[in-house]
Amino acid sequence: MYNKYMDKKISEKVINRLTLYHCILQDFIDKKIEYISSKQIATLLRIDDSQVRKDINLLNNSGKSRVGYIVKELKKSIETTLGFAKTKNAYIIGAGNLGMALAKYDNFTSYGLNIINLFDNDDSKIGKSVNNKDIINIKELPRHTKENDVDIAILTVPGKFAQSTAEYLVSANIKYIWNFTPTVLNVPEDVQVWNENLMGNFLQFTYNI
Amino acid sequence: MYNKYMDKKISEKVINRLTLYHCILQDFIDKKIEYISSKQIATLLRIDDSQVRKDINLLNNSGKSRVGYIVKELKKSIETTLGFAKTKNAYIIGAGNLGMALAKYDNFTSYGLNIINLFDNDDSKIGKSVNNKDIINIKELPRHTKENDVDIAILTVPGKFAQSTAEYLVSANIKYIWNFTPTVLNVPEDVQVWNENLMGNFLQFTYNI
Repeated sequence: MYNKYMDKKISEKVINRLTLYHCILQDFIDKKIEYISSKQIATLLRIDDSQVRKDINLLNNSGKSRVGYIVKELKKSIETTLGFAKTKNAYIIGAGNLGMALAKYDNFTSYGLNIINLFDNDDSKIGKSVNNKDIINIKELPRHTKENDVDIAILTVPGKFAQSTAEYLVSANIKYIWNFTPTVLNVPEDVQVWNENLMGNFLQFTYNI
Repeated sequence: MYNKYMDKKISEKVINRLTLYHCILQDFIDKKIEYISSKQIATLLRIDDSQVRKDINLLNNSGKSRVGYIVKELKKSIETTLGFAKTKNAYIIGAGNLGMALAKYDNFTSYGLNIINLFDNDDSKIGKSVNNKDIINIKELPRHTKENDVDIAILTVPGKFAQSTAEYLVSANIKYIWNFTPTVLNVPEDVQVWNENLMGNFLQFTYNI
């Protein structure tokens, strides 16, 4: 079978939009609505509906009828294309409010992100659990990454501990860091960092206010 | 005085990069380092140093010497250009873990985002405070937006309450919603929404893993 999505590299912007379409489709399913038009999606996101159609054309989506896309089919197409089925295991580093919030965010699982454990150095947190995920002493991280073959870490420690913690993660063989701290990390070339630059996002949003 | 940044519209991508440069500069100041080169910034962010120089040229920055940019001057130039000084007041809606984490995020203040209060409907939270910000009954929001002239809300409620809460915010005259929920909001045209699409970001980051 010919799968369009196996041949085309999907750009970051398209991936981002597809996940937003996915949120809308989930909402339509919850409301038991069976069909959706590109126009409906476009209106909610305030983008052009030709853009929506173009993005959807990148998918291996067959569920199109005269009354619009079939919501469940389109949702499944997005999941297949973006590889939601290919679960990625990750650890949360830092069991503060942000770490806890992310651990409780059940939506992650349906997008193929499986948070296994949280790690912290605070004795008052170690041994507790949140959303069925244990909070473990950070000293035990190297053993865990090895045993569970996890190489993704979600970094939520306070900014002043970010660099030293990142170095520790690297020494424990973490290769991908999703960085929620306001610190730019200095790590070896073979380690990839995604900066969740919250203030940058806010400033983009409010620049013209 | 001629200010370059007053004539040029700065793109979202540039704004995002400038905030990352700002994080690096803060880190250099903490380490008492006085000069920084475009190469140093570029290496940390794994981008081209011609890109860094181009971005910095958009600023009204005079602090350049033979040994590099003067860290403090460059930091100040970014702050002036991005309008950090023009403080924006905002409310956090939802005093769960994420709302609490954002309320505690002191970095916001230095970027000109001033969180005034949190709002929730949970009696066990109302009346408490976090980081000197009171948690107020959401029913009192309309009075507060009016009295304090606040029109920015940071939405951190659970996804299933996102749409109804957004409608309530709109009725209370909120005009800008920074949406941390995994729900695409349907709001009137004069209300702007910025989707903090965490799963989209994660999928962009991990698409090729």
